[in-house]
Amino acid sequence: MEKYPLLSTIQYPSDLRRMRPEKLPELCAELRTFIIESLSENPGHLASSLGAIELTVALHYVFATPDDRIVWDVGHQAYAHKILTGRRERFYTNRKFKGISGFPNPKESKYDAFVAGHASNSISAALGMSIADERLNENRKVVAVIGDGAMTGGLAFEGLNNACVNPNNLLIVLNDNNMSIDNPVGGLNQYLNAITTSPFYNKLRFKVYHLLKKVGWIDENRRGRLTRRLNAIKIGGNGTHNIFEGLNIRYFGQVDGHDVCLLVKVLNDIKNFNGPKVLHLLTQKGKGYAPAENAASVWHAPGRFNMQTGERIVSKSPASRYQDVFGETLLELARANDKIVGITPAMPTGCSMSVMMREMPDRVFDVGIAEAHAVTFSAGLAKEGLVPFCNIYSSFLQRAYDQTIHDVALQNLPFVLCIDRAGLVGSDGPTHHGAFDLAFLRPIPNWTIAAPMNEIELRNLLYTAQLPGHGPIAIRYPRGCGEGLDWRRPFEAMELGKGECLVEGEEVAVLSVGPLGNRARRAVGRLQAEGKHPGLYNMRFVKPLDEALLLEVAGRYHSILTVEDGCLQGGFGSAVLEFLADKGCPATVRRIGLPDQFVEHGTQDELYRMLGMDEEGIYNALNALFK
Amino acid sequence: MEKYPLLSTIQYPSDLRRMRPEKLPELCAELRTFIIESLSENPGHLASSLGAIELTVALHYVFATPDDRIVWDVGHQAYAHKILTGRRERFYTNRKFKGISGFPNPKESKYDAFVAGHASNSISAALGMSIADERLNENRKVVAVIGDGAMTGGLAFEGLNNACVNPNNLLIVLNDNNMSIDNPVGGLNQYLNAITTSPFYNKLRFKVYHLLKKVGWIDENRRGRLTRRLNAIKIGGNGTHNIFEGLNIRYFGQVDGHDVCLLVKVLNDIKNFNGPKVLHLLTQKGKGYAPAENAASVWHAPGRFNMQTGERIVSKSPASRYQDVFGETLLELARANDKIVGITPAMPTGCSMSVMMREMPDRVFDVGIAEAHAVTFSAGLAKEGLVPFCNIYSSFLQRAYDQTIHDVALQNLPFVLCIDRAGLVGSDGPTHHGAFDLAFLRPIPNWTIAAPMNEIELRNLLYTAQLPGHGPIAIRYPRGCGEGLDWRRPFEAMELGKGECLVEGEEVAVLSVGPLGNRARRAVGRLQAEGKHPGLYNMRFVKPLDEALLLEVAGRYHSILTVEDGCLQGGFGSAVLEFLADKGCPATVRRIGLPDQFVEHGTQDELYRMLGMDEEGIYNALNALFK
Repeated sequence: MEKYPLLSTIQYPSDLRRMRPEKLPELCAELRTFIIESLSENPGHLASSLGAIELTVALHYVFATPDDRIVWDVGHQAYAHKILTGRRERFYTNRKFKGISGFPNPKESKYDAFVAGHASNSISAALGMSIADERLNENRKVVAVIGDGAMTGGLAFEGLNNACVNPNNLLIVLNDNNMSIDNPVGGLNQYLNAITTSPFYNKLRFKVYHLLKKVGWIDENRRGRLTRRLNAIKIGGNGTHNIFEGLNIRYFGQVDGHDVCLLVKVLNDIKNFNGPKVLHLLTQKGKGYAPAENAASVWHAPGRFNMQTGERIVSKSPASRYQDVFGETLLELARANDKIVGITPAMPTGCSMSVMMREMPDRVFDVGIAEAHAVTFSAGLAKEGLVPFCNIYSSFLQRAYDQTIHDVALQNLPFVLCIDRAGLVGSDGPTHHGAFDLAFLRPIPNWTIAAPMNEIELRNLLYTAQLPGHGPIAIRYPRGCGEGLDWRRPFEAMELGKGECLVEGEEVAVLSVGPLGNRARRAVGRLQAEGKHPGLYNMRFVKPLDEALLLEVAGRYHSILTVEDGCLQGGFGSAVLEFLADKGCPATVRRIGLPDQFVEHGTQDELYRMLGMDEEGIYNALNALFK
Repeated sequence: MEKYPLLSTIQYPSDLRRMRPEKLPELCAELRTFIIESLSENPGHLASSLGAIELTVALHYVFATPDDRIVWDVGHQAYAHKILTGRRERFYTNRKFKGISGFPNPKESKYDAFVAGHASNSISAALGMSIADERLNENRKVVAVIGDGAMTGGLAFEGLNNACVNPNNLLIVLNDNNMSIDNPVGGLNQYLNAITTSPFYNKLRFKVYHLLKKVGWIDENRRGRLTRRLNAIKIGGNGTHNIFEGLNIRYFGQVDGHDVCLLVKVLNDIKNFNGPKVLHLLTQKGKGYAPAENAASVWHAPGRFNMQTGERIVSKSPASRYQDVFGETLLELARANDKIVGITPAMPTGCSMSVMMREMPDRVFDVGIAEAHAVTFSAGLAKEGLVPFCNIYSSFLQRAYDQTIHDVALQNLPFVLCIDRAGLVGSDGPTHHGAFDLAFLRPIPNWTIAAPMNEIELRNLLYTAQLPGHGPIAIRYPRGCGEGLDWRRPFEAMELGKGECLVEGEEVAVLSVGPLGNRARRAVGRLQAEGKHPGLYNMRFVKPLDEALLLEVAGRYHSILTVEDGCLQGGFGSAVLEFLADKGCPATVRRIGLPDQFVEHGTQDELYRMLGMDEEGIYNALNALFK
């Protein structure tokens, strides 16, 4: 591996720590090339990982990992970390079925100190770890690495608010690239920009920092009043206020996050300071790869690309993605209904609300990584008469669960919740699968819950949802492409809670919600070719159930197979069981859905096949029900 | 009503607004007496309502409610608001069955602008309302009233972070009484204390405020750069930093929140300022009633009391409360196992973790109103080897749903989640009922979910949960008293996932989880006296189900009645249905549990009776299953 003369000598951080510091910039350059080269073939999260290379090298150089703990927030920036911690040779399997995970994963490596995937958890988790270590007299350091995007999440603030309360030596590295996945938003971002661009502020920080070091104050354990007094000294006279020091966390910054030698020096300087502290780094997303530097959003997870030309290799599917059906339809609807507004927590591109944003920027609200706020804020909009389309990925909606109950359902507000990335999402893996939404929304009174079978149903559900006369509606649909239907057709209103019979049959019926209905349709076709005639029903709604249709099915078939791309506990199949039990219907029911386990990563097809949820699995389950 | 000469003339705020301002202090005094007198007979939230009287009067005096909107955070401080908005004569029904709600409730009054009950939602909701009003050209003001306790919740921060982004004229009134329900915690509280006690800071604020007004800057619409520059001016040279202005929200304060005339003046001054703004009021919980001033925690919701002497009328039940079984047992366990730590989000008294806190203050973490942080922080503690007992009320656990999945279950951490206030909580009503926990936890892999039938089971489950060798365990138990058992007995380990047969019977079996099993036992006794012999099984665990016992039951009885104090959608009964369907067991199943609706307030007994979930309801359901 002479292409990477330094990198190839490093299996673990202990190897790195034997390296002379002046070699580190060269190592960073190799890492950068290695990541770009690898990701050009094996797609992954490029831009944020490129921005964190020097930081990663410096952290492992200065801290005694894995005894010291690095808690990565979100974790998609941790590729250099993976490569330096025993996974370089397997890195080509990144995000692939049975390969290494795209996120830090404690099951995969002891260097991965905590689960990452959902933003903003690092400060709370690392604070707990740091306090536990102090209590258990473990002499280890704990570092949380959090981006400015993740810092807007309420959980991060709750962690910050508690950081000064109990004895701990937590170091929070604020990796400030002035970006979320899309553009950054909010007062905190404006604030970080303001202090970053204040030369007086910067100079002062470092002057005071060196002064404190010189007079020997810095290695003392200072908290509470004393810390506050020092903060006041540090800030005195410059007219800029520091939020972190307001919360009694010592602040150091800003430091160039791409100067690895400086980073090593600064981390060595502050790592033994007692008490919680923030180190504010300025970095650039996509650093060192010009195409990514110039368009960090696009290069967040660019897919395959030509490394030399920077050309992305987009394999154009003939079918539209569900998210594009959402995005384009929303814009059409918004043109016709001026009450419609769009709300996204930091995912305008990811959910294609960017389509509406481009044409109507003042009617789309990107609230940053803040799912709970997205829902409650949308509820406020709805309360006063607007029609909010709030789009949240299924697994992130878990962050706004209480809000869907307390702030939406209790008031039975007209509220359109569009749940993207429902079902298995593929290579992002267990932190990102949308497994639970049907089960956790179903118990909440007043919600209508729909899962379209294809693009046209999604489009017509979106149209129906903005019509007046109903309470909150959740419309959940998967990541990726639809069935390739010609969906750009006139709108048709759908009846809420109404399913449809696709195939009348005998003996056995399939009841499906969502896109797995298409696999069920093919499975039914195969059985028909073999002379068996299962019925096929696209139920569309998990709540309210189409009770008339269900009674008809229960009267006509001896067995029922339910099919859904959500968890089996409490989901659609469970709703069918509840209804049949309440009505005293004796049908045999089998259910296909996600099992009671966290599903790893891979392509959606690989995973559904593994779980017996593909066409073959449905075929087999159906076949077994014929007597 | 000559006892209240001013108050009796006010039906609605329009009456109040006809009053001369110098009369307002007298009105406040009457309101105070009215509330104290009323609550001495009809228990409710006393201390926080007494602290908000002047604020409430001033708000309705200055703002044109209900066209202008007041969004109360939490809402238990809103009694004066209720009394001034058409509900004085019904106030004696406060929190009673079919009476008025103890919280603002839009279904009850158009003056209640948004649902309240769960802390920290007011800024997000009011921001949405304010932006909607701006967009709809409604010329109304929106005010969010939030306490310093609620300000620690992540949702409040997410709201603050977004307040400066879009055009709005939101006024956030920070009602700072330096208290949560218990003592306040965290960096933000330390910060508010620091700026409050800085005389220089206070003087400067007002000087600048008047200066700005004089030079006419204040009625301009200033945002972004200009606001920041003004903030810098306002703060220049005083060495204290203001977090709100850091987030680009104009800050005014601090103002004595009990000087109603001053409040009217200040509110009139700032109400037409454009852009988001914070008004920082200093108030005292329990203001004007000495016993409550001196012990605000105790007088948060004191029950009945003698108004003259301040003596609380405690009707001592012979049975212990579940929370006390938890609190005392936790202390015992912590004495024996030094790995145990306690975590509570602002409810040390409410959940009785205060018992352990008194003896071992350094092993209990009150993290403030921050449920999500409580869970992730506890996960961090667990990851490093401690045994966290994290206690969260059932309905507030909805705020930490993602954390129970992403930060706990994915790592299968040993984590003891104690869920207090599960099932119907009584007079707090629909925002506080613990209806959904069984249904929303059940789909998550790796969790064990237990619901003890009585005090002894709760105690032994707590003991079992801290033994090594398992993943996360949730133990959920209700508000209020147990069965009066003598529970202070030696610990016995319980087998996880193991139920018990209480009564062997024939034909029909009851399967219960949780305390409704005791009502079921009495119903079974009545049937026995009538010559019928239902079986009775205390399943204890919702997950894993005791499959062996279930198979035995399914083989022995033709009908099964499941009984639980949680929602019917996806809960315990649903789990039983799923199991029986998967095994192909043909038993008839009926389920007793909470229906698909929000249940109003009343005593627990009244509500369970209304819903057919009392002894009589179970008796009737059982009886109907006998052939």
